[in-house]
Amino acid sequence: MAMQDRAVRTRQELIRSAAEAFDRSGFAPSSLTEISVGAGVSSGALHFHFGSKRALGAAVESAAAQILQDIIAPRPCEQPESLRNLVDTSHVLARRLAEDVVLRAGFGLASDAAWQENVELWRVWRAWVRSVLTLARGEGALVADVLIEDLVSAVTVAVVGAQALGRADADWSPRHAVAQFWNLLLPRITTAVVRPG
Amino acid sequence: MAMQDRAVRTRQELIRSAAEAFDRSGFAPSSLTEISVGAGVSSGALHFHFGSKRALGAAVESAAAQILQDIIAPRPCEQPESLRNLVDTSHVLARRLAEDVVLRAGFGLASDAAWQENVELWRVWRAWVRSVLTLARGEGALVADVLIEDLVSAVTVAVVGAQALGRADADWSPRHAVAQFWNLLLPRITTAVVRPG
Repeated sequence: MAMQDRAVRTRQELIRSAAEAFDRSGFAPSSLTEISVGAGVSSGALHFHFGSKRALGAAVESAAAQILQDIIAPRPCEQPESLRNLVDTSHVLARRLAEDVVLRAGFGLASDAAWQENVELWRVWRAWVRSVLTLARGEGALVADVLIEDLVSAVTVAVVGAQALGRADADWSPRHAVAQFWNLLLPRITTAVVRPG
Repeated sequence: MAMQDRAVRTRQELIRSAAEAFDRSGFAPSSLTEISVGAGVSSGALHFHFGSKRALGAAVESAAAQILQDIIAPRPCEQPESLRNLVDTSHVLARRLAEDVVLRAGFGLASDAAWQENVELWRVWRAWVRSVLTLARGEGALVADVLIEDLVSAVTVAVVGAQALGRADADWSPRHAVAQFWNLLLPRITTAVVRPG
């Protein structure tokens, strides 16, 4: 392995280890020692890559933003109806939040009181939901009296809330909650039949 | 002021100060010194009332549970239709979460990774929503194909999510988000006209 590959991999391991620590205990109690041990690297290597815990937090958020971009990126040769795209993508986000600690820790920083910087992830998600719903309206897929901003708010809140409760209550399934939300809502907002892809 | 009154008041001030610290910085970074200074009492007085920060956390949660009980308690001489009761009470909860730091900090502990004990508040809210919706079904107020469990999940998630986003994003209004949720959902779940009380 070339030295540069090794450096890239060490950096990724540190981000993953930091995400695991933030997800497990929150930002404030996570120690740099715990993070370097979890990544299997020396604390010297950690300091070579990241000058502070705050820099690690920013790297976790930025890695999570990249994962979110991949989730919402349009796929070539695939143009489903917009409403189906929204339903499918919200399910993918709920699943990835359950499975991917970096994504979960990135979103988690947004509601971590000890992390006092801006987290753009929810805004990115909201802007994407708005753009897809605007397309859906253009396609005639939405019932006339449904306001796009009400839907943007409800869809955002559903994914945030499902995720936050999953953390607070082990009996709660965020993925099931998102499915229940659409069960309830789809007959209200569309006259078309929307089946998950 | 009798000595006992003073002790009760000191205890309340400590709970309020602890809630403010948890809400501002999270459980882990909040220090007992900061909490006693915020309450205007000596650290000796803090230790007289609470043996540890964990005991303060439990007291904040228990005070929040009492506030929640008051919010969901049936009022004598007032029996609105159940669906209206649900809509009104969800608005009251959103407003009280915005205004009352003890309530907010209690719910906040549920999603604070550093607070690793059970928080029953969301379960209490969920159980209440379920009971009110069961009444609403008995009153014939719900459209036949709406599943109560889907609604329990959606209403819970809406309030949790609205609150969590309020913390992450200063531009976000939890109260407005709850109103948008009902705008969207009420025409789906009921044929009756539900106006906020």
